[in-house]
Amino acid sequence: MKIGLIGTGNMSRSLGILWAEQGHEIFWGSRDPNKAKSVAEFAGHNTQGGTNDEAAEFGEVIFYSVRGVMPSTVLSSTDCLAGKIILDCNNRDIPEGFAYGPLMAESLAEKLAVDVPNARVVKAFNTIAQEVFELSPEPLQEHQVSVYICGDDLEARQTTMTLAKDIGFNPIDCGPLRSARMLEALGDFIRFMIGGMGLGPYATISVNVLPEASQQRLGRRQSGS
Amino acid sequence: MKIGLIGTGNMSRSLGILWAEQGHEIFWGSRDPNKAKSVAEFAGHNTQGGTNDEAAEFGEVIFYSVRGVMPSTVLSSTDCLAGKIILDCNNRDIPEGFAYGPLMAESLAEKLAVDVPNARVVKAFNTIAQEVFELSPEPLQEHQVSVYICGDDLEARQTTMTLAKDIGFNPIDCGPLRSARMLEALGDFIRFMIGGMGLGPYATISVNVLPEASQQRLGRRQSGS
Repeated sequence: MKIGLIGTGNMSRSLGILWAEQGHEIFWGSRDPNKAKSVAEFAGHNTQGGTNDEAAEFGEVIFYSVRGVMPSTVLSSTDCLAGKIILDCNNRDIPEGFAYGPLMAESLAEKLAVDVPNARVVKAFNTIAQEVFELSPEPLQEHQVSVYICGDDLEARQTTMTLAKDIGFNPIDCGPLRSARMLEALGDFIRFMIGGMGLGPYATISVNVLPEASQQRLGRRQSGS
Repeated sequence: MKIGLIGTGNMSRSLGILWAEQGHEIFWGSRDPNKAKSVAEFAGHNTQGGTNDEAAEFGEVIFYSVRGVMPSTVLSSTDCLAGKIILDCNNRDIPEGFAYGPLMAESLAEKLAVDVPNARVVKAFNTIAQEVFELSPEPLQEHQVSVYICGDDLEARQTTMTLAKDIGFNPIDCGPLRSARMLEALGDFIRFMIGGMGLGPYATISVNVLPEASQQRLGRRQSGS
């Protein structure tokens, strides 16, 4: 699959490398095309780098890791995004001292979708610190770390779930894009655990359905122990 | 430890039985004292039942499972709560069809604390469906299901963490009571997973810190694979 990554920050570099290792075609974009090219040189695996416009043009899937700036500003035109899957991994700024005010009534992902109505926006990868991606994929498979995925296009969600599985994560389908409000709140929560409560960047949050074997104990309990 | 449970709903019954099995002294309270007494009869383990006032008087720790009604309304006086730990497990109503509007700017737990300023309110057990408590404690220990705990009194949090451990859960310290805003959002999220996404009541959400053994792979990755 052809993946264009807008932005060359930690998240973008780590995920791009992981996907490249799994055989996906990777193109990093940056305001500074030379920076993106040097990321690709470091990463190897026939990855490429260039401008943001080139990355947007290249990808069937666009990993959008630029926070607080909309695609219509970053790209000279968003026409090339038509029908493409845009992965939004961004979280809002944590208030100083984790002093929580009102939570969001509209998610960043929904705002992004308003900016690029021709694209298929998916929220994903916003609840995991970049350091965790350094571990992929073998140890992650063992620990069943969840990636929460939502978006209004079913096929886009399914593609994203496959991309998450490719690099060792356990994808959790969270339904329509409005669920991003919950997922960004989850992003706040894990960052609070990592920073505010001092668990560090390897703290992760996973959804598990307890297996059938456990549920059989119900009988014992219901009969009034 | 003496635990008074206000309300005799599913959550209150299941948790009371689990704590009784671990040797804690249990008193259920209800508007209908006969109902509370029959719960205690069913539960055995020398548990007791009676009025809400009696339960509030009895407990060193109060499990408060009455939703949408404040202790100052439920009890004839809140004087007996002075210095006691109040466990709030409540979540707000889920909007119909999980159609999310604005999230909370103030948590239910904080509202509760305003109503009983003499007590030590702790948010806990609001992210787990009652069915999961039927499994405790052995299968839960195996699956490391997290209980998220916050409150402004450190000792009250520590006591609650011990009570969670007693019945097979992995307690996660979430700091001050204002974190309840995040925990109640987490409550929304898990209920969305259970209901909206159809994972069912055995879906759980756990915080895990990935172990050191995994982190050693960092070296491999950083050297540019």
